[in-house]
Amino acid sequence: MKPSIPKGTRDFSPTEMVRRNFIFKTIREVFEKYGYQPIETPAMENLETLTGKYGDEGDKLIFKILPRGEKLTKIGGLLNTKVSFADLFTKTTEYLDEALRYDLTVPFARYVVQHQNEITFPFKRYQIQPVWRADKPQKGRYREFYQCDADVIGSNSLLNEVEIVQIIDEVFRQLKLRTIVKINNRKILQGIAEIIGASDKMIDITIALDKLDKIGWELVEQELKTKNLSSDSIISLHEIALSIKNEKFPEHKLSLLKNHLQDSGIGLKGIEEVEYIFNTVKNIRHESSILEFDLTLARGLNYYTGAIFEVKANDVQMGSICGGGRYDDLTGIFGLSNVSGVGISFGIDRIFDVMNELNLFDSIGLTASTTKVMLAHFGEEERNYCIGIASQLRSVGINTEIYPDITKKISKQFDYANKKQIPFVIVIGGDEIKTGELTLKNMTSGEQTKMKVDEIILKLK
Amino acid sequence: MKPSIPKGTRDFSPTEMVRRNFIFKTIREVFEKYGYQPIETPAMENLETLTGKYGDEGDKLIFKILPRGEKLTKIGGLLNTKVSFADLFTKTTEYLDEALRYDLTVPFARYVVQHQNEITFPFKRYQIQPVWRADKPQKGRYREFYQCDADVIGSNSLLNEVEIVQIIDEVFRQLKLRTIVKINNRKILQGIAEIIGASDKMIDITIALDKLDKIGWELVEQELKTKNLSSDSIISLHEIALSIKNEKFPEHKLSLLKNHLQDSGIGLKGIEEVEYIFNTVKNIRHESSILEFDLTLARGLNYYTGAIFEVKANDVQMGSICGGGRYDDLTGIFGLSNVSGVGISFGIDRIFDVMNELNLFDSIGLTASTTKVMLAHFGEEERNYCIGIASQLRSVGINTEIYPDITKKISKQFDYANKKQIPFVIVIGGDEIKTGELTLKNMTSGEQTKMKVDEIILKLK
Repeated sequence: MKPSIPKGTRDFSPTEMVRRNFIFKTIREVFEKYGYQPIETPAMENLETLTGKYGDEGDKLIFKILPRGEKLTKIGGLLNTKVSFADLFTKTTEYLDEALRYDLTVPFARYVVQHQNEITFPFKRYQIQPVWRADKPQKGRYREFYQCDADVIGSNSLLNEVEIVQIIDEVFRQLKLRTIVKINNRKILQGIAEIIGASDKMIDITIALDKLDKIGWELVEQELKTKNLSSDSIISLHEIALSIKNEKFPEHKLSLLKNHLQDSGIGLKGIEEVEYIFNTVKNIRHESSILEFDLTLARGLNYYTGAIFEVKANDVQMGSICGGGRYDDLTGIFGLSNVSGVGISFGIDRIFDVMNELNLFDSIGLTASTTKVMLAHFGEEERNYCIGIASQLRSVGINTEIYPDITKKISKQFDYANKKQIPFVIVIGGDEIKTGELTLKNMTSGEQTKMKVDEIILKLK
Repeated sequence: MKPSIPKGTRDFSPTEMVRRNFIFKTIREVFEKYGYQPIETPAMENLETLTGKYGDEGDKLIFKILPRGEKLTKIGGLLNTKVSFADLFTKTTEYLDEALRYDLTVPFARYVVQHQNEITFPFKRYQIQPVWRADKPQKGRYREFYQCDADVIGSNSLLNEVEIVQIIDEVFRQLKLRTIVKINNRKILQGIAEIIGASDKMIDITIALDKLDKIGWELVEQELKTKNLSSDSIISLHEIALSIKNEKFPEHKLSLLKNHLQDSGIGLKGIEEVEYIFNTVKNIRHESSILEFDLTLARGLNYYTGAIFEVKANDVQMGSICGGGRYDDLTGIFGLSNVSGVGISFGIDRIFDVMNELNLFDSIGLTASTTKVMLAHFGEEERNYCIGIASQLRSVGINTEIYPDITKKISKQFDYANKKQIPFVIVIGGDEIKTGELTLKNMTSGEQTKMKVDEIILKLK
């Protein structure tokens, strides 16, 4: 039997880990730079915490855990009562009561409500942990994957939205990834629906508009008709969409929209919010990302109540690599109402794929190994001499490996260093022990230099 | 309904996370300093990878996952076939085929065999991930907890054992935790069993000896009799145990044992191995730990074949906080035989508890918050002015938070910083905007100083 792992899951090799850890570290440090603090929640949640939160389709994808130990004993009689699998799944809450975390948002909401008396609001937290979904595995879709979320809850301030743009900006600048950051606001969409006389059809309208670029106006119109939008509404919508279609600058788009929405209080509020974000970030942003206002951005509409964000890579075809928005009632499901928040989530797997495709790990100069230098040797005496040298190097923080086994074959040791992509090798022979002049080989350039330990430390540190 | 989490699981608050992350970071950096590279394996393994590896008791504690999606469909007919829970658990591999990782060792062995053609041996890997056990939850025992393991596989060299002692030494020195590191060697135990004429009773003897300090010789003798050890064997054993009982120095204990074991090849090999470790680490160790040879150390005897390590905290009563040893056939269970390795595992939860009890987080100077400074303000104009100041501070890597909401109540903002244990607060009022002279308050000492941004940067960086 060749050992294997479950479908849709992955092992990560050292090279992959070094790269993934670099992305995680970058995101974590930026989150902390903006005052977000880490929390962790358990992999398992009570099933009732999760069910009903992700829609019918989502509920089906929750991984449930078989009860064990005393819980199993409690089920008692059931042990010998025969049930069908169908029963088991239908009556899940009766038989089963634990499941694996499906995302980080619902556990965060649960955390906030459960610990509300210990938390100082506004509560700014970040969380980087895996989640599990029983999705059909396919290219780029896994049953286990990490989410990297930051949320602030208990603050209505638009400063939070501004800082989210800054965070996105700074993370991708550090990753050397050029991006387009799209912003929309649900209030503007609400305003448009109001103005065209179809307040109740906001979501249908947005979903149709989202396809405008891909399928063109005629098909959008058809779709809207099937949703029972009146001809008048459709004509008004077309007029609004057309008027901003060819505007390049977000400021112009927004002021044109302002004219259309002048009779909608909520619409104007939405415009004002987006304008505040654009005006405030203007002077503090880096140039690595393009900030766009995108009226057709439809994301999390059942959920977001204000700003909506989405980030795409500029140089690669790939879905969104980051997204988020403002919500007004995240914790309501657990009994804590009227707490507004705003959050952002980075898609680490897609970011990894994009960076790989663009060779960004190399251009950042990330080495494949965490080890900086390996000590090779010609025999037992030399190997033991290495221990002292390694201690000196490690004491100043240089990651150092001694080839552990004793072998005269120096080529085998070089081969090991090469395959592990260790950037430097020091060779210790009898001469080196006598003179203290060591040979340092740069494994990339092939260059060899004779140096004392102190000089090596200066070079490698 | 008050939201809650499953029994035996935990939420970690920001303060706990800061402390836990400090421990993880320390361990990770030391592992990397000695050339160990990170890997990660999935939370879920195929059930057949795990079953039979942890003994009957362990098998019962494996969390199994209910099949979902297409797998469920494949079970097909079963959907409506009624089965009892008892059936479900007995015939698990028929109905269920995935389970949560129970430790990091078995997944590591599976990883090595599965990826043997991509791996360069000796393979030095570390892994820091949670594991799950359906154990009865009690104080200090959880159903989800992290393990921090480092192993090298494919090397017989004792240098690896030496480096493990160095790693233990360096981790606990950095954590300011005084420890006793106990070393034993299974070969010595084997030799003793041989010499006293009870080769087949090595494990019984060791388990009994392990209790010597606690229960005294008479009870040990009684236990050995129930295991059918002959009187002669027991007398010989007592003689050996007595002879080293009052020796303080490991070197003396070892040379006394050498006399006893001179007719046992394996026994002498064990002594030689332990002596090599003691002699080699002598000059390169730090003084924060005491290194002891402990003949009664019985740990992982079904598993370890050479060195055995165990670490205890010096100043607190607590079980072992770290342990490991050499094994000869970890990957044999998956079809790759005769690959020797040695590993070490740090118990993060106990280390955390010990450090808490000894107030070490404070003496290390670890702040409870990842945020260094908060900007407080008297109104909207001041708040917006903060954005520029925050950008300057963040651009040099100072973690900075702006109190997000606009409020005249400065005391509310100070209260927020206080509760979050943010060490510095800068207050921005009209005067500050005019003069650029900002007030920096040290929240611990209460001291307030007027300073320009550049001076604040110098002070806080």
